[in-house]
Amino acid sequence: MAASAVAPTPLLTDELDIIIPTIRNLDFLEMWRPFFQPYHLIIVQDGDPTKKINVPEGFDYELYNRDDINRILGPKASCISFKDSACRCFGYMVSKKKYIFTIDDDCFVAKDPSGKDINALEQHIKNLLCPATPFFFNTLYDPYREGADFVRGYPFSLREGAPTAVSHGLWLNIPDYDAPTQLVKPRERNSRYVDAVLTIPKGTLFPMCGMNLAFDRDLIGPAMYFGLMGDGQPIGRYDDMWAGWCTKVICDHLGLGIKTGLPYIWHSKASNPFVNLKKEYKGIYWQEELIPFFQSAVLPKECTTVQACYKELAKQVNAKLSNVDPYFTKLADAMVTWIDAWDELNPPSKAGLANGSA
Amino acid sequence: MAASAVAPTPLLTDELDIIIPTIRNLDFLEMWRPFFQPYHLIIVQDGDPTKKINVPEGFDYELYNRDDINRILGPKASCISFKDSACRCFGYMVSKKKYIFTIDDDCFVAKDPSGKDINALEQHIKNLLCPATPFFFNTLYDPYREGADFVRGYPFSLREGAPTAVSHGLWLNIPDYDAPTQLVKPRERNSRYVDAVLTIPKGTLFPMCGMNLAFDRDLIGPAMYFGLMGDGQPIGRYDDMWAGWCTKVICDHLGLGIKTGLPYIWHSKASNPFVNLKKEYKGIYWQEELIPFFQSAVLPKECTTVQACYKELAKQVNAKLSNVDPYFTKLADAMVTWIDAWDELNPPSKAGLANGSA
Repeated sequence: MAASAVAPTPLLTDELDIIIPTIRNLDFLEMWRPFFQPYHLIIVQDGDPTKKINVPEGFDYELYNRDDINRILGPKASCISFKDSACRCFGYMVSKKKYIFTIDDDCFVAKDPSGKDINALEQHIKNLLCPATPFFFNTLYDPYREGADFVRGYPFSLREGAPTAVSHGLWLNIPDYDAPTQLVKPRERNSRYVDAVLTIPKGTLFPMCGMNLAFDRDLIGPAMYFGLMGDGQPIGRYDDMWAGWCTKVICDHLGLGIKTGLPYIWHSKASNPFVNLKKEYKGIYWQEELIPFFQSAVLPKECTTVQACYKELAKQVNAKLSNVDPYFTKLADAMVTWIDAWDELNPPSKAGLANGSA
Repeated sequence: MAASAVAPTPLLTDELDIIIPTIRNLDFLEMWRPFFQPYHLIIVQDGDPTKKINVPEGFDYELYNRDDINRILGPKASCISFKDSACRCFGYMVSKKKYIFTIDDDCFVAKDPSGKDINALEQHIKNLLCPATPFFFNTLYDPYREGADFVRGYPFSLREGAPTAVSHGLWLNIPDYDAPTQLVKPRERNSRYVDAVLTIPKGTLFPMCGMNLAFDRDLIGPAMYFGLMGDGQPIGRYDDMWAGWCTKVICDHLGLGIKTGLPYIWHSKASNPFVNLKKEYKGIYWQEELIPFFQSAVLPKECTTVQACYKELAKQVNAKLSNVDPYFTKLADAMVTWIDAWDELNPPSKAGLANGSA
């Protein structure tokens, strides 16, 4: 069963892009150099296009600023957030690779309990290449991992698992807390290294953080829209959450799995809780209506591609969340624009092959 | 939020019974003495009543053999398995305490990664005394634990959690594998200490192992029936699984939580895989029909006590599983007998108070 975990993990340098929103900190790439240099980077600059980002020598990268996004997408550029790291999802769209890894520029290389540098990318690849188990819980965590398996009582018919679409990594040091929790617990640090990868069960929602995230673009890419945040929008810091809820509902519908746990990165600094509170406060109460919406969302059988699922979800957002705030009408429109832009950059024939039957 | 985790864990010596099926190994109690001696033990002897179990001095215990069970339950004793450790559930019924911890006699004290002996009971009490989070997944695991909390994007209205009914502990050394996996991987040992406790989400089934298990008897006791195994029955080694599936469906219905993860015990020896295969083989294919049954089981709103839920489940077992094998007709009858016996030993007035509104 666990044979796949014993084999060395392939690098997939030709099949994976690393997507980074604006890099403010030049140490970031230097620190990751041993792990990232073999890969192609896509940097999406979130603010002023005239500001130059100095990428150190030796990295293979392309950089998109707002002018590029406007030029490439034309009027459809309206679906990409401005002055917010949510713009990173433009990178998912222009990538031509099967796998995406996205990371924030305040996330550094963490160490495992033995003091060894953690190769986060390698663990994400491991997670994505072996199946997930969304239909039944395995108490020894990822059954495909070396030294583990399915425990007594796990139905044999479910041991093939499901394709893994998303690998959600965690954070040592500064935990990913909301503004109220940051304010209440300013000194809390995450020092607990939990040596586990597990599948979020079917039917269960989770808070997906975009700091340290990998996914199979062919399987789930079009669902990874980070919404409308930042400049001109009433809300921030819900970009990855929104993507996570949509993605989870679609993965559940299409029989795909989402894993969380390893790998850890070192989250170096907490963002300002006062600024965060301003960005989040509407989300904090809107969320109370969003969660029941996503928990009860049902996609029709006819939706067999991610694009079809996503457009259907946009329709339901418009119908059921517009009364929460007019923002959701705008967001539902942007969701449709996003899919149209995705299909334009990823011609249907190819996308059809990739997303056809998961 | 995590304030409860910071306080010292109460011992609950007057509120917890330790239930052990036949003790074959006298080292067992000696090894656990520092942790178990303050508690009352209930030993349920599974085989020949004339065989004497020598409990070392200093332990406060009561011992029940088959003759005792027959005397106490009369004709209702038919619901208690004979020559199988499933008989332990008789102990749940005769206990008068709020909490139960049950452990097998081949489970010894494990060590944490720092080399310190793990007080399994203390961790179970911790798990049971703080809430569970079955309605939404928290990526940093148990949010009530010291140094952890709910992450960004976790709905605030769900942060009170749900009462924890069950704490499912794990095993280092010999993992709890079924016979086919034991046969295929005779040398596999579990050496991975995963430093986490997490809630099994609502709507997700899991394989509950009875080796290292604690529960709140007032909240869920009557659902912890270990079925008909052993002498005269066509199946074995599914006693705890059966209890787990019934318990999970009822916990989901009543809004109760089940946690798994810490504490670990050291599982000293693997049982004979050939003997196990003989006991399990019917379960292995029956299970393929049992899981869909439990996944789709719905309990009516009117079922507000564990007893009512359990009797309803017995009715559904009889209606929907009798065609799998006549065994399930017999099991459904035994489920009803079990509840009748439970109520006889735990008079309704008291049980009503305890299980009334969870």
